[in-house]
Amino acid sequence: MATFAKRTDIPLDGARTLPRSYFTDPALLSQEIEKIFERNWLCVGREEDIARAGDYFLVTLDRESVIVVRDQAGTVRAFHNTCRHRGTRLCEGHQGQFSETIQCPYHSWTYGLDGTLLGAPSTHDLADFDKADWPLLAVAADTWHGFIFINFDEHPKSLADQLGMLEHRVSMYNLASLRSARQHVYDVKANWKLIIENYSECYHCAPVHPALARLSPPTSGENDFSEGPVLGGYMELNEGKDSLTFSGRACGLPVGDLPAGEHDRVYYYSIFPNFLLSLHPDYVMFHTLWPEEAGRTRVTCDWLFNPETLRRPEFNPAEGVDFWDMTNRQDWHICEESQLGIQSRFYQPGPYSRREALPMQFDREVLRQLGHKRHY
Amino acid sequence: MATFAKRTDIPLDGARTLPRSYFTDPALLSQEIEKIFERNWLCVGREEDIARAGDYFLVTLDRESVIVVRDQAGTVRAFHNTCRHRGTRLCEGHQGQFSETIQCPYHSWTYGLDGTLLGAPSTHDLADFDKADWPLLAVAADTWHGFIFINFDEHPKSLADQLGMLEHRVSMYNLASLRSARQHVYDVKANWKLIIENYSECYHCAPVHPALARLSPPTSGENDFSEGPVLGGYMELNEGKDSLTFSGRACGLPVGDLPAGEHDRVYYYSIFPNFLLSLHPDYVMFHTLWPEEAGRTRVTCDWLFNPETLRRPEFNPAEGVDFWDMTNRQDWHICEESQLGIQSRFYQPGPYSRREALPMQFDREVLRQLGHKRHY
Amino acid sequence: MATFAKRTDIPLDGARTLPRSYFTDPALLSQEIEKIFERNWLCVGREEDIARAGDYFLVTLDRESVIVVRDQAGTVRAFHNTCRHRGTRLCEGHQGQFSETIQCPYHSWTYGLDGTLLGAPSTHDLADFDKADWPLLAVAADTWHGFIFINFDEHPKSLADQLGMLEHRVSMYNLASLRSARQHVYDVKANWKLIIENYSECYHCAPVHPALARLSPPTSGENDFSEGPVLGGYMELNEGKDSLTFSGRACGLPVGDLPAGEHDRVYYYSIFPNFLLSLHPDYVMFHTLWPEEAGRTRVTCDWLFNPETLRRPEFNPAEGVDFWDMTNRQDWHICEESQLGIQSRFYQPGPYSRREALPMQFDREVLRQLGHKRHY
Repeated sequence: MATFAKRTDIPLDGARTLPRSYFTDPALLSQEIEKIFERNWLCVGREEDIARAGDYFLVTLDRESVIVVRDQAGTVRAFHNTCRHRGTRLCEGHQGQFSETIQCPYHSWTYGLDGTLLGAPSTHDLADFDKADWPLLAVAADTWHGFIFINFDEHPKSLADQLGMLEHRVSMYNLASLRSARQHVYDVKANWKLIIENYSECYHCAPVHPALARLSPPTSGENDFSEGPVLGGYMELNEGKDSLTFSGRACGLPVGDLPAGEHDRVYYYSIFPNFLLSLHPDYVMFHTLWPEEAGRTRVTCDWLFNPETLRRPEFNPAEGVDFWDMTNRQDWHICEESQLGIQSRFYQPGPYSRREALPMQFDREVLRQLGHKRHY
Repeated sequence: MATFAKRTDIPLDGARTLPRSYFTDPALLSQEIEKIFERNWLCVGREEDIARAGDYFLVTLDRESVIVVRDQAGTVRAFHNTCRHRGTRLCEGHQGQFSETIQCPYHSWTYGLDGTLLGAPSTHDLADFDKADWPLLAVAADTWHGFIFINFDEHPKSLADQLGMLEHRVSMYNLASLRSARQHVYDVKANWKLIIENYSECYHCAPVHPALARLSPPTSGENDFSEGPVLGGYMELNEGKDSLTFSGRACGLPVGDLPAGEHDRVYYYSIFPNFLLSLHPDYVMFHTLWPEEAGRTRVTCDWLFNPETLRRPEFNPAEGVDFWDMTNRQDWHICEESQLGIQSRFYQPGPYSRREALPMQFDREVLRQLGHKRHY
Repeated sequence: MATFAKRTDIPLDGARTLPRSYFTDPALLSQEIEKIFERNWLCVGREEDIARAGDYFLVTLDRESVIVVRDQAGTVRAFHNTCRHRGTRLCEGHQGQFSETIQCPYHSWTYGLDGTLLGAPSTHDLADFDKADWPLLAVAADTWHGFIFINFDEHPKSLADQLGMLEHRVSMYNLASLRSARQHVYDVKANWKLIIENYSECYHCAPVHPALARLSPPTSGENDFSEGPVLGGYMELNEGKDSLTFSGRACGLPVGDLPAGEHDRVYYYSIFPNFLLSLHPDYVMFHTLWPEEAGRTRVTCDWLFNPETLRRPEFNPAEGVDFWDMTNRQDWHICEESQLGIQSRFYQPGPYSRREALPMQFDREVLRQLGHKRHY
């Protein structure tokens, strides 16, 4: 069982923010894509998005397009969206359903849902060609409490092992059974790390999120994970407040069987490198992050509810969805202002305050995975 | 006389498509501009476009702008659109007519239609200045059956020699006398080589061009040129079909004096590096290609007819023009999907099928002219 | 006292225009930003723009944003618009008024108008943190006859010394008392040097500015500064013309106490690197230049008048403002055509004429400050 620690008790050791190039240099982003985004498990969506055999959706990371599909046996699989013949994209649509095969629109090369090359016209008499050598290129795929993850690494570490530390926390939230009520996709003109640094501290909550700060005291709560790829903990709701909504009242049925003492908490976890999980008593919000340029990130945000909530007219999920949509936009805006300021040739790394231990720890994980030395 | 060979008889020797960088790397495109586009004859249009002395049009290749003009003696000439004084563009309009001189709009330096510097105010007493040293920079220009070609090379090989092999084929099509009924300019988000590879095989015709495949069997025909800078041959029209039009009926008078056995053929030639010539019984279509970025190409397409066709109300050139406009757009779309797929870091060169000998030979010509080794 | 010399008497020594890379290469622009724009005094506006304590406006140069503010003591100061904490932009609005402090919108770090860090929440017990070490980063600021200048250099030379040579000329124009009637901001798709070269000669006036040439003979006048960072002199107005306006009549009261012989002159000075000052009898026009890309420059243009002119209904400042707006646009257009022509790989530096000694001298100042050798 994890123990909790106050955020302000984590030693800072003279920590400084990252140097400018980490936020502005395209070559550094390329390093991050290769060493971080293509070696870690990335959250790409929910199992409910591909409920039936043949259902698929596409994932875009930088120049990569990946088909995530449920095969005939019900297994979630992922493949590069590139025909082995002349490289053409196999699917155009963002989501859809395959019949039993995946066929390239250019020359009709045909693959099974397991990636096997089944048909390749006018190749039967080629001396040096064997269909068995040209299956779709697979990307590792796995699931965790209804979430789908992919990993570009050829030999990825186990997803279950990596997230095992969160098991005792998420198990009471019934994550697998929840259903999405809404998805927003945001185009944020800021480096992806600024968005996670922002998520990792509530030092900015009073100036940036006055409505949030009235429901949940910015200095409340404690962390159970304050080092490594999973970071986070909880913040408290003020007395008389049930959740983070415009009214402070719950906008849905409880998402899980929360024990006493858990009803006035919101848990926030950043799961390296692209997954932010926010557990409220009556809904679960999650973000996924997709770097597009050094100074630009696509962010998805989903709101999951107890499926019963979505059936009952007396609940209004928009109370929570719109509250966080407003709060998200406040965050993206201030991150964009940071991005602009950091672009100055005169910017120098600044001092982290007592309340910014998690952004500091996130920065250290970035440096560790890049194999870079600390700069202070 | 060229002899014909079946496409599928050309040895493939384990041929593989080109590596990713050939389609995505701006530095490689710069090499291609310098070593291929600025050393070969480029088709830029038709003599009819500059019928009278002083008529001109502009050609744009990458950062270059070239004035193609008919001089007083009736000769077609080409000059860099850059004043020798301070580099200003001499002409802005895409086409027009000069009076007897070309005058720079900035400081009125004035050149003859042969490029001679005739006037340069306030330079008469400059010690080290002689007008004879500052003519417009010429680009080689020549014509062939009504087509205008330019060549950036200072000492280009002969155009007539290079295209002599096609003489027996094109002579019966009366190319010089034909007139353009329509021009389309397409902005294709694909590398220029993908477009020529696409033009060079009909392996994709059944999946991509169902209407075309109904008129002309995708596996029909033979090639007379299957190696080197000119590649191509003919495909057959199905019995009862006169041409490639929506109805399959001719949309104009015959373009030439075709002997028996030539009325049910369409000839397709790719003429390295930017000219695609498609000879139908009742019209001639030609494309020119202009790389703008590694992943972007401007393509012009003109449809030429027997001038008599354009005068007779019973003919409807749009039947052929619109048929190919539809077919062109199908090709651009699939090329754009290839471009997207090839951008993946995980793309690997794939195997060419029996029916893709010409794309393979085109790739070899590219590598040969770049001075690059074969990659398989 | 400066003496005047005829423009055409300045030796040219076979001068040639700059090589292509000076107009097209992003790396060369970066050198210019660092070695020229960040080491010289840049004109950024007028004191009247920040009349009261707390008034500010922002200046943008490349990736830099600078706050120019009048402090409580009335002094004009400049600071990088980047919080010392996490780099966020302190101000978003292009102009406005601070209360007594500048507060970062992200985490409420608070600075005095002198740049002192006054407040930084949750930092009081940080072992290695002293607010005195984290003031806003200052940029040098100074004023000259109502104009505000900034200098990114840590140890800039004196502005007064640098512009002292112009003192006898500008003193009679009462510059400090003038007021702006209009500002235009132009987005010019040309390198910044093309714009100053254009400003520095009237060799182009007859072809490009027929209306101007009718009021002021293009070959008239003499220069008092024909070498170094300040270049320029006067041109004459034709007899019966009072100023450069559509009608040729004055559009305002005299801007100064001009002695006899000065009423039919317009003085033009380029003040290295970004300030162009044009003194007419009845108004003063000034431009500031801001390189955005190698081939793109933001240009501001202000028209200053005797404040009494702006109060009297019988005057119409638009007569002068619109005349020059038209003339400016003629210049930007021809500069853009030069930029396009110079982009050709075949462009070669050309010969300057007898009437282009000032552009040649400006080029030499550029090369000198870059530490580059002359290319001819």
